[in-house]
Amino acid sequence: MARVYNFNPGPAALPLEVLQEAQADLVDYKGSGMSILEASHRGKEYGAIHDEAVATIKKLLGLGDDHAVLFLQGGASGQFAMVPMNLLGEGQSADYVNSGAWASKAVKEAKLIGKVNVIADTGKDIPTRLPDPAALKFTPGAAYVHITSNETIAGTQWKTFPKTDAPLVADMSSDILSRPFEASRFGLIYAGAQKNLGPAGVTLVIIRKDLAERVSEKVPVIFRYKTHIEDNSLYNTPPCFAIYLVALVARWVVKNGGLQGMSKRNADKAAKLYAAIDASGFYKGTAVKEFRSDMNVTFRLPSEALEEAFVKEASGRGLKGLKGHRSVGGVRASIYNAFPPEGVDALVAFMKEFQQKNG
Amino acid sequence: MARVYNFNPGPAALPLEVLQEAQADLVDYKGSGMSILEASHRGKEYGAIHDEAVATIKKLLGLGDDHAVLFLQGGASGQFAMVPMNLLGEGQSADYVNSGAWASKAVKEAKLIGKVNVIADTGKDIPTRLPDPAALKFTPGAAYVHITSNETIAGTQWKTFPKTDAPLVADMSSDILSRPFEASRFGLIYAGAQKNLGPAGVTLVIIRKDLAERVSEKVPVIFRYKTHIEDNSLYNTPPCFAIYLVALVARWVVKNGGLQGMSKRNADKAAKLYAAIDASGFYKGTAVKEFRSDMNVTFRLPSEALEEAFVKEASGRGLKGLKGHRSVGGVRASIYNAFPPEGVDALVAFMKEFQQKNG
Repeated sequence: MARVYNFNPGPAALPLEVLQEAQADLVDYKGSGMSILEASHRGKEYGAIHDEAVATIKKLLGLGDDHAVLFLQGGASGQFAMVPMNLLGEGQSADYVNSGAWASKAVKEAKLIGKVNVIADTGKDIPTRLPDPAALKFTPGAAYVHITSNETIAGTQWKTFPKTDAPLVADMSSDILSRPFEASRFGLIYAGAQKNLGPAGVTLVIIRKDLAERVSEKVPVIFRYKTHIEDNSLYNTPPCFAIYLVALVARWVVKNGGLQGMSKRNADKAAKLYAAIDASGFYKGTAVKEFRSDMNVTFRLPSEALEEAFVKEASGRGLKGLKGHRSVGGVRASIYNAFPPEGVDALVAFMKEFQQKNG
Repeated sequence: MARVYNFNPGPAALPLEVLQEAQADLVDYKGSGMSILEASHRGKEYGAIHDEAVATIKKLLGLGDDHAVLFLQGGASGQFAMVPMNLLGEGQSADYVNSGAWASKAVKEAKLIGKVNVIADTGKDIPTRLPDPAALKFTPGAAYVHITSNETIAGTQWKTFPKTDAPLVADMSSDILSRPFEASRFGLIYAGAQKNLGPAGVTLVIIRKDLAERVSEKVPVIFRYKTHIEDNSLYNTPPCFAIYLVALVARWVVKNGGLQGMSKRNADKAAKLYAAIDASGFYKGTAVKEFRSDMNVTFRLPSEALEEAFVKEASGRGLKGLKGHRSVGGVRASIYNAFPPEGVDALVAFMKEFQQKNG
């Protein structure tokens, strides 16, 4: 079978050349006589790729020595707990923006650990939207301010980030490395890899080193950022193969123009798809235009029956993973960095055809 | 270069046929038009392999419905914290056996969470050893008893497990699936995959379901076993590729005689190596004989200079990863399930040759 167009929201499409390189090297890594899956995490073969992954991410995001780049486990869901465990001291509070399903999970977990102020809530707004960054009212003395840069289910994305006195913390699982932004301005950024960075099983954490000192000595050693900063993410055995793939994906991003290149590629894909939706009089975008995500394009058809038929027929044509999240329904096209522009063209063509038959 | 013999302590050797199958399927998984690295964790392709991994482990260990098989992230180091977070209630205490480097890390982490009684301590004994299971004195009313079934650094392994009133909890990272044992008698077993199960990046947890109910509602949702039991390890995105490889490795174990087959294979390899050590008058095993591990064979040479030369020369002959752990020095041959018997023959031959030249 030919390669399909994979619109899955995560785990998601990876660059074909990355998969091919990983395949070629899988049994015998660079003539070492063993697979990278079998290599010691303290050996020179893995060490080189680990350090390359850290260095490339740092370079792409323009980070200096004030920030550490970590590779942890447990996904964004693990970070929902680790962030307050590390940064939210006794007697303090943290500001959270509830912008949808993912932000609301972060809020829920943080509330088990400390005091949370939800300073804006657009989580249940339909059409889906985000608050105006300039209108946010922060709590004086907050330990940090938490946002979710892109909501995969709602299909919304912050276009500019708020300016805060407290350290800004962002879940960027679904749009990290998709566009240039001032990363050094953030106190902490985390991202599950399985959308823009690599496969499931590794979590990128970028942290301003001084913030890691806040942690209480009651927090388990393994859940302290400090532990992992001190050991360059090698305190315990890291998920080596997933980090290896992150290194290859980061190389591919550099080769394709870095964050500027990704931004253009992503904006072009998204613009084409939103234009097709808006011109149709049949498909209807679910997000308010100014907050539309370039990563997850969400839309509805005139009926749920049509949506079901659409997703099923598309799948038969090799356009996979278009079903909206089970909590909201509808259609969702996830078009992260690695998703090819031709896949968007194929979807737009199919949308026209489907409308002609069913409109 | 030919395939080397990989004596790494973990990540460690995987069955060659597993690597070859993963390689063949890496870009296009079973004709699905995408890699298993890109497949949705909620789709049918991944779902089938996830369920197979759970079912095969359950079958190999003879577990019934009282126990759940989970695939989590964070390694044994994560479990050092999760076990007491879930099982050690306020006002309770837990019994720990300190048998070496790994057990002592488990003790250290548990002490941050609750009251720990170290009921036996052989952690610093030289030659390395374990306590007599029958002589252990448990604390009445202990929440659980924690042991480490195999110490990779010391090269020691429990040959029989203690009988306890409290639930028995074991870190089996380095000998899970290596021999038959009464798994249903355990309250909780955990194992980082990178020794006997698969690659780094996934942690097997086997838990008696009723114990998961003990958890306090103050524990973050992501760190509750209960959460993962309820969602069959799909509460959040699991490390899909690592679990896929665990499924393939488990299939390979079944094909090679199950736990009985592994036990014979492992005992034969270890016996051959220990016999060569004992007959030499040059090499000296570091563990007391009755506690010698079939997984990690640790030994010394007459001097550190000779040990260094031994490891270096062996590496040049394709016998890789023989250096003892940096904390203890010496030589360590890790010969987990997947390590081929011919590799032990090659090591024994090299040992004889090295002794002739340097003895």
